[in-house]
Amino acid sequence: MSKLAMIAFGGNALLRSGQKGTYREQLDNVEATFEQLYPLIERGYRMVIGHGNGPQVGNVMLQQEAGARQFGIQAMPMDVCGAETQGAIAYMIETGLDRVLHHHGIDRTVVSLVTRVEVSPDDPMFLHPTKPVGPYYSREEAEQLHAETGAIFREDPKGNGWRKVVASPMPLRIHNVNIVKMHADAGHIVVTVGGGGIPVIHTSEGYQGVEAVIDKDLASALCAIEIGADEFYILTDVPKVYLNFRKPGELALDVITVDQAREYLAQGQFGEGSMAPKVRAGILFVENGGKECIITEAGQLHNPACGTRIIK
Amino acid sequence: MSKLAMIAFGGNALLRSGQKGTYREQLDNVEATFEQLYPLIERGYRMVIGHGNGPQVGNVMLQQEAGARQFGIQAMPMDVCGAETQGAIAYMIETGLDRVLHHHGIDRTVVSLVTRVEVSPDDPMFLHPTKPVGPYYSREEAEQLHAETGAIFREDPKGNGWRKVVASPMPLRIHNVNIVKMHADAGHIVVTVGGGGIPVIHTSEGYQGVEAVIDKDLASALCAIEIGADEFYILTDVPKVYLNFRKPGELALDVITVDQAREYLAQGQFGEGSMAPKVRAGILFVENGGKECIITEAGQLHNPACGTRIIK
Repeated sequence: MSKLAMIAFGGNALLRSGQKGTYREQLDNVEATFEQLYPLIERGYRMVIGHGNGPQVGNVMLQQEAGARQFGIQAMPMDVCGAETQGAIAYMIETGLDRVLHHHGIDRTVVSLVTRVEVSPDDPMFLHPTKPVGPYYSREEAEQLHAETGAIFREDPKGNGWRKVVASPMPLRIHNVNIVKMHADAGHIVVTVGGGGIPVIHTSEGYQGVEAVIDKDLASALCAIEIGADEFYILTDVPKVYLNFRKPGELALDVITVDQAREYLAQGQFGEGSMAPKVRAGILFVENGGKECIITEAGQLHNPACGTRIIK
Repeated sequence: MSKLAMIAFGGNALLRSGQKGTYREQLDNVEATFEQLYPLIERGYRMVIGHGNGPQVGNVMLQQEAGARQFGIQAMPMDVCGAETQGAIAYMIETGLDRVLHHHGIDRTVVSLVTRVEVSPDDPMFLHPTKPVGPYYSREEAEQLHAETGAIFREDPKGNGWRKVVASPMPLRIHNVNIVKMHADAGHIVVTVGGGGIPVIHTSEGYQGVEAVIDKDLASALCAIEIGADEFYILTDVPKVYLNFRKPGELALDVITVDQAREYLAQGQFGEGSMAPKVRAGILFVENGGKECIITEAGQLHNPACGTRIIK
């Protein structure tokens, strides 16, 4: 059977800062992303796609808030907002991917699954919300929103402003991951764990949603492990992982071992909320049987030796 | 193999008029609906679920409108709004169904698919949009939006203002219906064609979304035909189909043939926007190889002889 790639990309592959975020722009963005992913399809990879939903779920949460104020529509909790974005983003991925496949004269079935991911109610992260969601605010706006809603805000390490933070518990189990694998084995391109999956906890009455955001790279890593992916691609906005990123002595990394990756993490080489979680997801994958995790930007994928590779 | 049932129910199975529409209410509603559907599961039926999204997509469109006004977030076209509701409703169905299965000590895999449904760009309904969607506007606002977007607006007969109207084209092909069938054959409960499916047309560049609403009963009928369902259940808020409904001489129908159903439709016995499209969906199913369509309310399903049956 051909190689199986798990691919994770951010919600900003569709909804980019600096754009208006029109439907047309988003479709063009997703089409461009899949045009860049096309070399993998051409090389015969089977493919499972996990995507983020940061900007999207932030927008849905704002729309819900505005809809409640203006029209009295009940705002849904964050798990439902996440489910909404799974539907919308999967549909836009299907549309953009369809255009790319059509353009290359290829017929591949694309299957999009609404996906719940189990977390532990005892996950310590619930006591320490850290995951940024939604738009960037000025300090003043963030303070006002905090006063209005109780939500917690933190400053973005890249200096883009302030963002709301929620708990980011560890993904423990991906619902229907056997079905994801079955589709991948059949050669279908699968869209799953959107936004890191809809977080649910097991209760005495069945599974129940919780307000949290599962890191989409960790959820994708877990998915990659469970489906036995050969390679796990984490797409970002830089070609490689760097030491001393954007500082004197910046050094692009080609191949690093899990031990090296851990060492660099311990040194604080990688930004929290940007590269650090990606490296951790790569470590998780490789430590659990994965061969290699490649962190790169989509535009590099034409080169089979692209990116930074994390290996055992 | 055990019998396969296609089941269609309205979006109001979750979001009921007269309630606030809180998350808790919606979960309770969906749980109650599946508790009523449980007799079919107990009798060993395999099951595919198609659901409506009328109240939900209306809310999403209002939220988008409010989000655009208040936060400047681009409102998405109706196909994306429909995709959002597919994600959210499927997730809530999974949660409610999970509770029912858990309560009965049963383990069944539930698979929710984001589903596009192909319609024809030449469907005559596109020339005569009749389905009101989204917010009410003043005449001036409606005229301005028409000038900006080309969307068509009609005055609400109840005097609430002007609303956008969209077409309700015939569903021609359900994307991935072979996958729905595969899951159903494997004994999975499948959630699909949410809101009648996301309407797409085939273009020279691939499939592309259109602003329209596909009748969920017709889409479910098409799905039932394609997966070879033995029985097609259309759930509504009355136990049977009636002649002279809520008039003198009201008569509940137990079994009717396709010819009788057509005759009653021609007589105007069934309300447009309520029973008539359900009867048409039943006819479509039975005329295309289906054995019987049962129109009833979920609360009757404990009785294997419930509802009105449309047969050849």
